[in-house]
Amino acid sequence: MTRLDARRLEPLMRAQLDAVGVDAASIDHVVGSLLQTSLRGVDSHGLQLFPHYLRAVKAGRINAAPRLAVDRSGRSTAVLDADHAFGHLAGAAAVDLAGDIALETGVGAVCVRQSTHLGAAAYFALRAAERGLLGFAFTNADALVKAFNGKSAVFGTNPICFTAPLEREEPLCLDMATSLVSWNKVRIRRESDEELEEDWAFDANGEPTVDAHAAAALNPIGGYKGFGLGMMVEVLCGLLAGGPVAHEILPMYGAPIEARRSISHFFMVMDVRRFVDPTQFRSRLQELVDSIRALPHSGEPVQVPGDPEKRAFAERSANGIPAPPALLQALLGVSDAFRGAVLP
Amino acid sequence: MTRLDARRLEPLMRAQLDAVGVDAASIDHVVGSLLQTSLRGVDSHGLQLFPHYLRAVKAGRINAAPRLAVDRSGRSTAVLDADHAFGHLAGAAAVDLAGDIALETGVGAVCVRQSTHLGAAAYFALRAAERGLLGFAFTNADALVKAFNGKSAVFGTNPICFTAPLEREEPLCLDMATSLVSWNKVRIRRESDEELEEDWAFDANGEPTVDAHAAAALNPIGGYKGFGLGMMVEVLCGLLAGGPVAHEILPMYGAPIEARRSISHFFMVMDVRRFVDPTQFRSRLQELVDSIRALPHSGEPVQVPGDPEKRAFAERSANGIPAPPALLQALLGVSDAFRGAVLP
Repeated sequence: MTRLDARRLEPLMRAQLDAVGVDAASIDHVVGSLLQTSLRGVDSHGLQLFPHYLRAVKAGRINAAPRLAVDRSGRSTAVLDADHAFGHLAGAAAVDLAGDIALETGVGAVCVRQSTHLGAAAYFALRAAERGLLGFAFTNADALVKAFNGKSAVFGTNPICFTAPLEREEPLCLDMATSLVSWNKVRIRRESDEELEEDWAFDANGEPTVDAHAAAALNPIGGYKGFGLGMMVEVLCGLLAGGPVAHEILPMYGAPIEARRSISHFFMVMDVRRFVDPTQFRSRLQELVDSIRALPHSGEPVQVPGDPEKRAFAERSANGIPAPPALLQALLGVSDAFRGAVLP
Repeated sequence: MTRLDARRLEPLMRAQLDAVGVDAASIDHVVGSLLQTSLRGVDSHGLQLFPHYLRAVKAGRINAAPRLAVDRSGRSTAVLDADHAFGHLAGAAAVDLAGDIALETGVGAVCVRQSTHLGAAAYFALRAAERGLLGFAFTNADALVKAFNGKSAVFGTNPICFTAPLEREEPLCLDMATSLVSWNKVRIRRESDEELEEDWAFDANGEPTVDAHAAAALNPIGGYKGFGLGMMVEVLCGLLAGGPVAHEILPMYGAPIEARRSISHFFMVMDVRRFVDPTQFRSRLQELVDSIRALPHSGEPVQVPGDPEKRAFAERSANGIPAPPALLQALLGVSDAFRGAVLP
């Protein structure tokens, strides 16, 4: 498979965003997030989003030069109006503010309204952990996960992301959709005409299906539990932000490309040292992580959240980001210059 | 089945706790929690724990007259040393403090160390929601959920509880173990010699089993995701509290009854009005809840988190708490006076 060099991709992506009027701060975070996410192996939220983002900027769904407005509503809280900015910019501003607040008071909680797709939630929560803090990131999304006992989707894949600093390596990072699998996994099976696993998805009548083409809604993790977690995320995002919720949210791909979606996010950051000695915290968490990795296993080794992404990051940083034909085609459709990022 | 009257149980339970020296504040919360929880239909965390708690107080595992110590470590944080109090007392003190802080700064986060079993997490988060606030409650527990890809249990059923106020009814309440089913469901099948469902549990070798007697570890929801959520809860509890984690935690039943367990909890409370108009919040959340309950369904109606508990509460408040023979026997083993709570 073709591999792309992240270092060579960076200036090419920057130039494309600049050409459609995206401001410097947005460019930093969009390119930073997409490359980090592809390097971490999370292809659904990496490079493959780039052509869509460009279209959404050109059409006016995403504001290329937004004016973020912060209402510092309480000593430990803020509401950030994103003015339809790239979610990557709004999210980074919000989580950094939550971190600043956490350093002052112990906890910072920042809700983001009037935003757009933010890419991978990990990008934000990792920023907190890199400061030695605990990070949480949540976002709502358009309806895609079936209501437990219902026939159709209500909430989005509404992810939960949590990070914590470790002693001798990059932070612990859990970044998970509240559905059993992401919609992207269904799409990949659809493209290759393969059947789905039994518990992944439901058809338009709410019946379980293994037909990738018939899949209309995803299965929440643990039945009513995953559905409940998705609802919790919606309360923290759409409800606290006073934005659209559940079916009120326009679909990312189905809606007119110029339509503004008013996605909501929620970030929380906590300062470890307000609870326990941070050196002790890091060394005990590292010890726990090491002990879990050393557990007897059957087949695959036991991992902690974020381990697959760390392995992918090391491998892809050395060998490049794999680009399946469809991705390469899409990037070349944006500009022939992307040929310059292909590794020999 | 025999039914017990909650109003008549209350003075009987109080008298038993008083007789073993439990202080008045602890009695309020232990009795309040166990009765509320049994009325809400959550039998695993209700009345059936009462005889065990009495034994644990007598043996000294639970401190009957603790001195709670609060370290207000930041403007929005505190650490509460529970002095081995009933978790019900320590948790109530902590979540109430977190609520007080949230009213001041927007968010309050309180970690509890040196505590004991706290019963149902919902008891605490509901206290926050009844003040119109958002509540979160977490606790660690002894290892019972199998590590994903591993052969044995690492984390406890480490619950996540979230509450939010509604407009026209009791709060929304999600209270879920991060395992697919609770250990209690396995125990019930074991007692009745019934097989388990296929995805519930694993045997001592980490192999899936439907034999209730062979079950040694539970399945996390969504595989690695539930395992990750359990780890997140452990970070918030055992790691932040500087207490025992994972296998360091003594089992509730297997360990000597006098052994202190140093369970850790974590509570967070947020003030809705720092983010959005609280009247609008409640009415929109109510509308969302109503719309979910009205969804087309297949078989069982669609519910939101806490609906089954609300129905059980109404039914059991009217008709009494069902007491299977083993529970009735255990209560009569504590005192013959419990016969006075049996409904005709």
